[in-house]
Amino acid sequence: MERSDENVVFIGGKPFMNYVTAVVMQFTTKGAREVNIRARGKFIARAVDVAEICIKRFLKERNVVVKKISIDSEEFDNREGKRVNVSLIDIVVGLNR
Amino acid sequence: MERSDENVVFIGGKPFMNYVTAVVMQFTTKGAREVNIRARGKFIARAVDVAEICIKRFLKERNVVVKKISIDSEEFDNREGKRVNVSLIDIVVGLNR
Repeated sequence: MERSDENVVFIGGKPFMNYVTAVVMQFTTKGAREVNIRARGKFIARAVDVAEICIKRFLKERNVVVKKISIDSEEFDNREGKRVNVSLIDIVVGLNR
Repeated sequence: MERSDENVVFIGGKPFMNYVTAVVMQFTTKGAREVNIRARGKFIARAVDVAEICIKRFLKERNVVVKKISIDSEEFDNREGKRVNVSLIDIVVGLNR
């Protein structure tokens, strides 16, 4: 049984397929049963793209589905010292049993 | 009992507060119990922002929470006639009873 924190893929500005590959490999070579796809701010839309492409294309035969989606937000001080909010998303994709 | 389709707010490129106001007014003046916040593509991150701001700031006293989040994707032909995928999100926020 792997710890949940070992199966987190954080979505950022690297090439799109890097993230798809990272998620797919968690299932295909690491034996993960669930993977958390997480993103902040503008990368949230990308996290949804990654989840959808993984599920509908690359992990279709493995019967991986969206298990749970949660959103949140947190405050932080930006470079100008102004307090701003940033949204977060956590998409749990996992084997459908 | 209102029909679900009457309480949908589609997030696009208008000023951010337009959408926040639209969601808040569904609860405060239309008596909605649930509102669907929907977006496609790059506007998905914005839909999460709208949901978070509504829940944590403007609807805090009304005890509105995230009820359900679902994602999907669909194919369409872009302007160059190329088939592309676009992701979708549907965030249901509602009264917490």
